[in-house]
Amino acid sequence: MDSGTSFFGDLLGTIAERGRALLDLGRERRPAGAVRAAHVAELCERLLSGQGEASGVALAQEILVAYRGLKTGERVAFFETLAVAFGPDSLRLDRAIAAHAASPGARTVAELHAASEPRRQELIRRLNLAPGATGLLVAMRADLLDSLTRRPDLAEVDRDFTHLLASWFNRGFLVLRRIDWSTPANVLEKIIRYEAVHEISDWNDLRARVDSPDRRCYAFFHPALVDEPLIFVEVALTREVPDAIAPILETKRTPLDPKTAKVAVFYSISNCQKGLGGVSFGNFLIKQVVEEISREFPALRTFVTLSPVPGFRAWLDGELANSASLAVTAEDRAALEALGRTGVPEEGARAALRPVVEALAAYYFLVARSPKGKPLDPVARFHLGNGARLERINAFGDLSPRGMKQAAGLMVNYRYVLEDIEKNHEAFFDRGTIVAAPQVRKMLRADSQQKLPAVREAAG
Amino acid sequence: MDSGTSFFGDLLGTIAERGRALLDLGRERRPAGAVRAAHVAELCERLLSGQGEASGVALAQEILVAYRGLKTGERVAFFETLAVAFGPDSLRLDRAIAAHAASPGARTVAELHAASEPRRQELIRRLNLAPGATGLLVAMRADLLDSLTRRPDLAEVDRDFTHLLASWFNRGFLVLRRIDWSTPANVLEKIIRYEAVHEISDWNDLRARVDSPDRRCYAFFHPALVDEPLIFVEVALTREVPDAIAPILETKRTPLDPKTAKVAVFYSISNCQKGLGGVSFGNFLIKQVVEEISREFPALRTFVTLSPVPGFRAWLDGELANSASLAVTAEDRAALEALGRTGVPEEGARAALRPVVEALAAYYFLVARSPKGKPLDPVARFHLGNGARLERINAFGDLSPRGMKQAAGLMVNYRYVLEDIEKNHEAFFDRGTIVAAPQVRKMLRADSQQKLPAVREAAG
Amino acid sequence: MDSGTSFFGDLLGTIAERGRALLDLGRERRPAGAVRAAHVAELCERLLSGQGEASGVALAQEILVAYRGLKTGERVAFFETLAVAFGPDSLRLDRAIAAHAASPGARTVAELHAASEPRRQELIRRLNLAPGATGLLVAMRADLLDSLTRRPDLAEVDRDFTHLLASWFNRGFLVLRRIDWSTPANVLEKIIRYEAVHEISDWNDLRARVDSPDRRCYAFFHPALVDEPLIFVEVALTREVPDAIAPILETKRTPLDPKTAKVAVFYSISNCQKGLGGVSFGNFLIKQVVEEISREFPALRTFVTLSPVPGFRAWLDGELANSASLAVTAEDRAALEALGRTGVPEEGARAALRPVVEALAAYYFLVARSPKGKPLDPVARFHLGNGARLERINAFGDLSPRGMKQAAGLMVNYRYVLEDIEKNHEAFFDRGTIVAAPQVRKMLRADSQQKLPAVREAAG
Amino acid sequence: MDSGTSFFGDLLGTIAERGRALLDLGRERRPAGAVRAAHVAELCERLLSGQGEASGVALAQEILVAYRGLKTGERVAFFETLAVAFGPDSLRLDRAIAAHAASPGARTVAELHAASEPRRQELIRRLNLAPGATGLLVAMRADLLDSLTRRPDLAEVDRDFTHLLASWFNRGFLVLRRIDWSTPANVLEKIIRYEAVHEISDWNDLRARVDSPDRRCYAFFHPALVDEPLIFVEVALTREVPDAIAPILETKRTPLDPKTAKVAVFYSISNCQKGLGGVSFGNFLIKQVVEEISREFPALRTFVTLSPVPGFRAWLDGELANSASLAVTAEDRAALEALGRTGVPEEGARAALRPVVEALAAYYFLVARSPKGKPLDPVARFHLGNGARLERINAFGDLSPRGMKQAAGLMVNYRYVLEDIEKNHEAFFDRGTIVAAPQVRKMLRADSQQKLPAVREAAG
Repeated sequence: MDSGTSFFGDLLGTIAERGRALLDLGRERRPAGAVRAAHVAELCERLLSGQGEASGVALAQEILVAYRGLKTGERVAFFETLAVAFGPDSLRLDRAIAAHAASPGARTVAELHAASEPRRQELIRRLNLAPGATGLLVAMRADLLDSLTRRPDLAEVDRDFTHLLASWFNRGFLVLRRIDWSTPANVLEKIIRYEAVHEISDWNDLRARVDSPDRRCYAFFHPALVDEPLIFVEVALTREVPDAIAPILETKRTPLDPKTAKVAVFYSISNCQKGLGGVSFGNFLIKQVVEEISREFPALRTFVTLSPVPGFRAWLDGELANSASLAVTAEDRAALEALGRTGVPEEGARAALRPVVEALAAYYFLVARSPKGKPLDPVARFHLGNGARLERINAFGDLSPRGMKQAAGLMVNYRYVLEDIEKNHEAFFDRGTIVAAPQVRKMLRADSQQKLPAVREAAG
Repeated sequence: MDSGTSFFGDLLGTIAERGRALLDLGRERRPAGAVRAAHVAELCERLLSGQGEASGVALAQEILVAYRGLKTGERVAFFETLAVAFGPDSLRLDRAIAAHAASPGARTVAELHAASEPRRQELIRRLNLAPGATGLLVAMRADLLDSLTRRPDLAEVDRDFTHLLASWFNRGFLVLRRIDWSTPANVLEKIIRYEAVHEISDWNDLRARVDSPDRRCYAFFHPALVDEPLIFVEVALTREVPDAIAPILETKRTPLDPKTAKVAVFYSISNCQKGLGGVSFGNFLIKQVVEEISREFPALRTFVTLSPVPGFRAWLDGELANSASLAVTAEDRAALEALGRTGVPEEGARAALRPVVEALAAYYFLVARSPKGKPLDPVARFHLGNGARLERINAFGDLSPRGMKQAAGLMVNYRYVLEDIEKNHEAFFDRGTIVAAPQVRKMLRADSQQKLPAVREAAG
Repeated sequence: MDSGTSFFGDLLGTIAERGRALLDLGRERRPAGAVRAAHVAELCERLLSGQGEASGVALAQEILVAYRGLKTGERVAFFETLAVAFGPDSLRLDRAIAAHAASPGARTVAELHAASEPRRQELIRRLNLAPGATGLLVAMRADLLDSLTRRPDLAEVDRDFTHLLASWFNRGFLVLRRIDWSTPANVLEKIIRYEAVHEISDWNDLRARVDSPDRRCYAFFHPALVDEPLIFVEVALTREVPDAIAPILETKRTPLDPKTAKVAVFYSISNCQKGLGGVSFGNFLIKQVVEEISREFPALRTFVTLSPVPGFRAWLDGELANSASLAVTAEDRAALEALGRTGVPEEGARAALRPVVEALAAYYFLVARSPKGKPLDPVARFHLGNGARLERINAFGDLSPRGMKQAAGLMVNYRYVLEDIEKNHEAFFDRGTIVAAPQVRKMLRADSQQKLPAVREAAG
Repeated sequence: MDSGTSFFGDLLGTIAERGRALLDLGRERRPAGAVRAAHVAELCERLLSGQGEASGVALAQEILVAYRGLKTGERVAFFETLAVAFGPDSLRLDRAIAAHAASPGARTVAELHAASEPRRQELIRRLNLAPGATGLLVAMRADLLDSLTRRPDLAEVDRDFTHLLASWFNRGFLVLRRIDWSTPANVLEKIIRYEAVHEISDWNDLRARVDSPDRRCYAFFHPALVDEPLIFVEVALTREVPDAIAPILETKRTPLDPKTAKVAVFYSISNCQKGLGGVSFGNFLIKQVVEEISREFPALRTFVTLSPVPGFRAWLDGELANSASLAVTAEDRAALEALGRTGVPEEGARAALRPVVEALAAYYFLVARSPKGKPLDPVARFHLGNGARLERINAFGDLSPRGMKQAAGLMVNYRYVLEDIEKNHEAFFDRGTIVAAPQVRKMLRADSQQKLPAVREAAG
């Protein structure tokens, strides 16, 4: 029984509605003679020059609607204009530099800061005046990211988008929601669409993941974004730390009574908004979900992931191609023949391959490093950077085509121990230390042990 | 019958709850040996230096709670540290200036911008990581504003707060809510407390203003601010444009059937959050409320204010003290004796005073100007800047002690004509034009007519 | 923008939650040594004899949980006990009859009424004390209905259930909700499951019906029933009165801009709760949906159904088998050969069959009657009884296997003209009049015209 | 964080809205030539005779609106018609009696029951078709109750209202809500208005009762009743079982940290709806609130009331007037002189009076009985009937004018021990046993001990 929060509860309904209305507007007006990029830029200039806000809202809305009417090429042209014509006011900047040179002080620095701010930052803030605009600005940035590959010169425009979006999507504004079978279909549909790790094949598959007593799903939302999860995590409650993904994804399994669970497994984390790329939420999400689950099941104490190792196969292939590899022995090379390029080795072959894969995986995680001294694997960088430790290596944990292709079937568990997170995190960033469980370290062959950069053995 | 927005509706309940929780935390931990300002600054340094976000949320929360434990003097000391120790990184700035001088380009400008950003901006953003932090940051800025009068050196800190709050409280994030008798009491209580124009004496007075069929009240809310209206407006639906406030505030009047109303009168607009001073919402509020009311009563076409004139009496006293005044004639001086310094002149005296006050009021609004060419009256600057026009001058419209003291009883109506707003607004900002109804202009004495700077006569 | 209703809004969340909790309870405790029917009856006796309500809630809950543990046979045994042991108190009844005979009056009649009330009515009311019980009582009645076919002696038990459910599910307690793509998945899932007229094949099919701009779906809910629609109607917005179902069900069609629609077509109405059989909602639903749609699209004026004719083929077969049939001519018999028993005749054959089918359909609706003078078709009885008129006959409007089998492809439109509903309804019940459009009547062959019982021609 | 209940949450908003709409309707149409009672009865006859529901909703609404237009006398006339003209169908009843006499059986009994049902029951059910009607029917019954004192002949009409309202307001349909400072003002206002035990003087007093950390307030609501609590209870969290009301009502007291509370005190229970008189909720409310509070504060174990004793003074006066009283001794009579008829005795006098009042109070509760063997005090009958025990007698616990007048200042604590409730309740109803704490029993003078009917001593 909760009380009294619903007056505010209604607010968001209002936001969602008008967001949808604005989207519809865009959809409706788009057709026929779409307004050209130049015209949009002109409107932007007007919006920016307005001294008051008399018609700011309407103008912002007009621009956003017009933008949606542009074709891809026209959108790039619009970004170009943002880059060229909406940078800092160079006259003002020169004057600010001169003033600072003449008599430096807090005031001249402040003016230097103001004068060097690209005018598009204020433009983006004013575009956000339109109710429901935030979602459209996120979509605009997704377009921009698409252009970036061919147009690296637009990076400075992207920097301004990122700056503002990071401020607006500050963790303090996000809200965690459980996703379950009573969640609206338009949100669930997005869970299906955005699942990036282990594809959700259909609504039955989805239901198995969100509506079983031993499954949980949580997402972050932002008040200004309509019906749109930002990031979500899928959790399985189990008795043991799992070593393979298939039993978890099995839709026909008998669910566990969650009260008897000992372990919470984060088996999939997906970002949903391309336009928010680079604004990181995952770390906050994991920690808050650990809190939520701890509250629901106080007896449950082990929080692990079951994670893919997307960089393993490419690294392994590189080492195999390198005759001077320090990681791969001649015996490894011989044994790895059985792995093949496609398909899954038979059970017998897998048993034989297991120690080889484990030793190499240990090398990949503990010894190999990027030029900057970071782990090679992006997922490892994420979880270890969050303060997790490498708990276990599971050869052939993922026999799906993707799992075989990216990681020769390899999966790992990262473990989140609340009391150690801070310590691990600092060790990782300050000294590049990778904290790993003893069992992982033991997989490393004796000779590789000596190559170990900074690895700390976890306590238990 | 609305559908499906309630999933999101719940989000805000969550926000509100945790906001309250954080506030409670502050309240509980505050006592005895409050953590000192220096320690808070130390924690800030740690928060800022954290490479990841591992413990950012907890740290931010700790700082906010510790801040609440500081006494006034300690808070000022803390702001001082923000000013002195959390400005831009001067080493980096020097390098950025040198690099820009050597070979100017987009990249060097960007670095110039980044290097000149005071470190406290990022600090404030990180403080906002804590769920519910936004409200506490707004309160922190209220403290800062209090200090500013004696400590103008803190203005640069204030500039950074303002910058971020303006971005976070962007109109696109605000939500309009009607305030009525089914609004939660903790919100209504704040309406009573924040009413700044015509005091609400008690709950009965409040009820007369929000729960009569011919009254409306609307407020803007921000999703991250707990139970807190940002600004609200009180509206009376009437048959005629009113010329006095008392009949509107009368709690015992017989309400009008709102379907027969011809005029919506905005008779009170109050900002609620001291900590958001300088972030302007009023303009947006008025325009959205005009839309709301137009939707509810499509036949209603006249939107006016009944506004105080807070600067009139001071100006008048100044002119009277100035023997060379161009505004005041000898006859005026004689007549104004009847006004007295306190109390309300009797009805007969008021009738005699009326033409004098009207003529002087017309002069005050239409002829007198600030050195920058703006109207002298702050309320006039607000509404005329929003694109309203000066519709009518009402001598003795407010006989309350405050009304007499500030404005010799004078009130005016500003009128919002949707189609003219843009035009009026631009004329006001571009040419300093004050748009006034013919009846106002006619009040000006013939000789003053010639002194008119830019006044446009409104059409009807 | 709505205000202030959300405090109450939360109430239902509470109801829903505890309903689910009770269901879960039942699910969990069911296994192993299920409590026997006799024991349940014993508990019922205890519940009924309790003088106060001290433990009524707990006892009611225990009974409902125990009931769910019973197997089918045991449930029937339980109903038997309700029939035999929970009828009226015969001693009290005899005394009441005697007292009434001795000195009849309001008081003796009241006692007669009280004494003749089966004790199970009060039992059912007390079972409803348990929070969330209503849904379980509806499910219990569904079981009872299942038993009735083989156990007509249980009809008296059913009468009491019906009496109470009709009172509790009074239209005044029902709430209309729009069903769309932001409806929770657990509700949408039931729309898929309960659709009884034109099967919904999967979630995409569902989405086409609830999430297109030219489609609407509405359902009635009861506050005490968890996540459960009671009845729902699917509506298509079209330009013309449709004569076939396939184009409406087509998931790939291009949606119509609803603002240009002229007609709202009720193409599917489904009851959801077997346990509420005999408690009628359809009539209220249609009328309220007409109001909702009229409010959303004031210009839309034509409200029709596109309805199946489930009794047509059986009637036709009966007439064909009856050599003395007044309805079927020798020419009809010859022509109808082309209809076949299964499959759909080719287009040419259909063209030839059309006038024959139309004439016979007109006879079926306008001339043929049940012994009580009612139309033979159950769907016709429903809509005509509601005050609709028979608007159009569409030969081969439904070429699906079911459509062909039940109705030789025949579909009809019933039309709801708000001003005529009352008149039509009364004419139907008082004089058995069937109101039909001129075009329907014209389909009737000249000789059949004379057999017409009561048919009123609709105006336009 | 809760999930997914908000779809249903919205339902009630809808109910509330339409309820208000209907009330407004009544208010508006009432004036001028109010429709007469006879006409209303005529409409009722039409509503009842309608075979279908074609216009039932509209007709029901018309009747309810017309009823609201009637003046008091006309309403009584309307009830009269209900009594006279809407009783059972006597012809049908005679036939049913005859049929039953001829060949009694389940079927004839059923018909007897149906035929003896007053027609107004079905009428009331049909009136409830109108959305929002339930609240108006409750109001109608309040009118009826008003009439009953002078018109006992209307009791049979009241019996039918009670029967239906008891079924509709079954505990299974009620929802418990916490009332606090974020509750809508229109609900809080009713808490002020309906408080029947210890008057709430204004909004500050209210706030002290619902918004202090050591206070709770809970109410039952029904989904169909607009903004209307049915019954509410005020709870104080304290360290000790209190013996006086004044410290609890003190608005300026320092609140207790609720986590350190040992006792929950139910110090006020008020029914809100006159029209639901005789439908009992209090018992359910107390038990559910005990559960709520136990969940919030698992350590809190003692649940007591601090209750008035409204019948004590009248009983005492009766005994004093009775020279043969067994309860009052000559010494008592002498001592009680100090009590006076009005005002509060001084502290010294109170100390002297205390043992006298205690002994007499013990007699009043434990020895004195109604002719039916029940306790004389209505509040005692309520709590003891609910299974509570008499825990303590507090002489001069309520020195307010009402407390002195009704009970010579006496208050008592009843205690709810969850495990004993059932046992106590049965003992009370089966054997008339009053369970009392040893300390209460000891207050009884030795000679009275022997007169004890059934009193069981509570364990601890």
